Amino acid sequence: MSKQLTPFETAVWLKERNNFLIITHVRPDGDTLGSAAALAQGLREQGKTAYLLQNTEVTLRYKQFVEDYQAPENYEAQHIIAVDTATTDLFPESAVQYSDSIDLCIDHHKSNTKYADLICLNADRASCGEIIFEVLMSMTDSISSETAERLYVALSTDTGCFSFGNTTANTLYIASLLVEAGAPNKDLNKLLFRTKTHGRISIEGMLTSGLEYSFDDKVAIAAITREMMETAGADEDDMDDIAAIPGSVEGVYIGITIRELLSPDDCKVSVRTRAPYDAQAICAHFGGGGHKLAAGCTIEKTIPEIKIALLEAVGEQFKSEKR
Amino acid sequence: MSKQLTPFETAVWLKERNNFLIITHVRPDGDTLGSAAALAQGLREQGKTAYLLQNTEVTLRYKQFVEDYQAPENYEAQHIIAVDTATTDLFPESAVQYSDSIDLCIDHHKSNTKYADLICLNADRASCGEIIFEVLMSMTDSISSETAERLYVALSTDTGCFSFGNTTANTLYIASLLVEAGAPNKDLNKLLFRTKTHGRISIEGMLTSGLEYSFDDKVAIAAITREMMETAGADEDDMDDIAAIPGSVEGVYIGITIRELLSPDDCKVSVRTRAPYDAQAICAHFGGGGHKLAAGCTIEKTIPEIKIALLEAVGEQFKSEKR
Repeated sequence: MSKQLTPFETAVWLKERNNFLIITHVRPDGDTLGSAAALAQGLREQGKTAYLLQNTEVTLRYKQFVEDYQAPENYEAQHIIAVDTATTDLFPESAVQYSDSIDLCIDHHKSNTKYADLICLNADRASCGEIIFEVLMSMTDSISSETAERLYVALSTDTGCFSFGNTTANTLYIASLLVEAGAPNKDLNKLLFRTKTHGRISIEGMLTSGLEYSFDDKVAIAAITREMMETAGADEDDMDDIAAIPGSVEGVYIGITIRELLSPDDCKVSVRTRAPYDAQAICAHFGGGGHKLAAGCTIEKTIPEIKIALLEAVGEQFKSEKR
Repeated sequence: MSKQLTPFETAVWLKERNNFLIITHVRPDGDTLGSAAALAQGLREQGKTAYLLQNTEVTLRYKQFVEDYQAPENYEAQHIIAVDTATTDLFPESAVQYSDSIDLCIDHHKSNTKYADLICLNADRASCGEIIFEVLMSMTDSISSETAERLYVALSTDTGCFSFGNTTANTLYIASLLVEAGAPNKDLNKLLFRTKTHGRISIEGMLTSGLEYSFDDKVAIAAITREMMETAGADEDDMDDIAAIPGSVEGVYIGITIRELLSPDDCKVSVRTRAPYDAQAICAHFGGGGHKLAAGCTIEKTIPEIKIALLEAVGEQFKSEKR
């Protein structure tokens, strides 16, 4: 069980130490990478040595924000810190060796398993970046433009540019301070939110053109085949948050995205719902899990077969409504 | 020529008067409507009488934010205020009778023609709502949740949920205060940014599937026919910011959208560019105008004819590059 620290206590702990190695999670997003890079930058500005552990899955979009902090091969760290990582199951391969020796974890996931000796956890924060900001401000009382830029990446990506339901007054307030400190929000927003790859725009076009509605247009289903991905020239990087599209249509309460995996009879299904409908209950039929409004499962059937099976499971949601 | 007032001076002027009528601009957006409704609400909370002049073009999306403030038919206003309206040319039909008798204009457009006796203008603000916030805070030092909600609509819609290049630290700071004051940002964002009509999602699908690239993929052209609009079931409400799509593709520097108007040989063309390319120069060829990065024109030709003519004008941009 970890000992809980406040951001101020975390700052004191960091001030008294040196030679840090920072771990990010698998399939790294803007929050884990922006948080880790900002922490490394902030520590360096305090005269410390700090590096990020290599994470082979960093995508092109985020590379520029972390490349200055990659740990050299024979770096001898004295203190290991994990950021934005709820459990050691989310450690990349390179971090598994440190699973039992994490000194400090800074995180905003309620589900954190408290695997580190010390934890600075605040589940009310929309992003881990907000907590890193509080820690760094406790250390230095000011923030450089380099640090501000990386924290802006963390805050903005975890909140969909301040549009998701997790965005709080605190998120917006810290974002205003980051812009004030020199975070180039105009360029970052253009890169992160207002630019789509050819592959993405093409797969979105196919997906939206092919939406199938049922149950009085309350249900929308999208299917993505491997052939569509190839035609679109889309890869995994292009599929971020794609499952949100069917559910974003006005009047749709249950949005379903079916994606072919390696073979046509092996598909990943994502279900997004609005209250009172239960995404988890739908996916439970197929051995999947998740939350009430967002869940997923893997089904070993073809897309047409899956559509039929899903519509049956979805039908139960509406049946129970009429009781 | 108008006399310039600070937000504080504007607050003093309002405090000393009563019975206001507030004018919004044609094709009203979230900023003009949110600003006007927030001002009316704030004035009412100060014991004043304040109404919005009927604007017949208010769309379904914004109706709920203004319906409590509609001026009754025989309302006798003593003071006329225009918000977010740069020139009397942008007055709706109902406001034309007041063109020469506007007491106060609150605006953020640099191009404001100073048609009002008094003007509270700040062209550094991303939205008019930010200036209304400053005026109301000067009057009352606090903001109700009803006012905060309407100001949030103003700020967020004029900045694309804080993603456009006009978003400043000030915008984000005021947004944080509005959320703190009770603006339901989660529900508002879902309504304003994360929900698309059937018509919108369908026309987006058609538009992105039909994008045509040229000049080494630096130019993307989209065409929208009346037939596409009909097939998609899309109307004018669904076309907000649609011209941004071609230019949002990675690597595209010049994004062009051609839309058929009432007949197939009468089209509206929108051009969006990234530096160093000049949208205004392209549209000037066809008698249009605008800014360097966003301009438009109307061309009395068919879509295929316009494509050819445009590509010629676009070619000049690349030619001048090589000189």
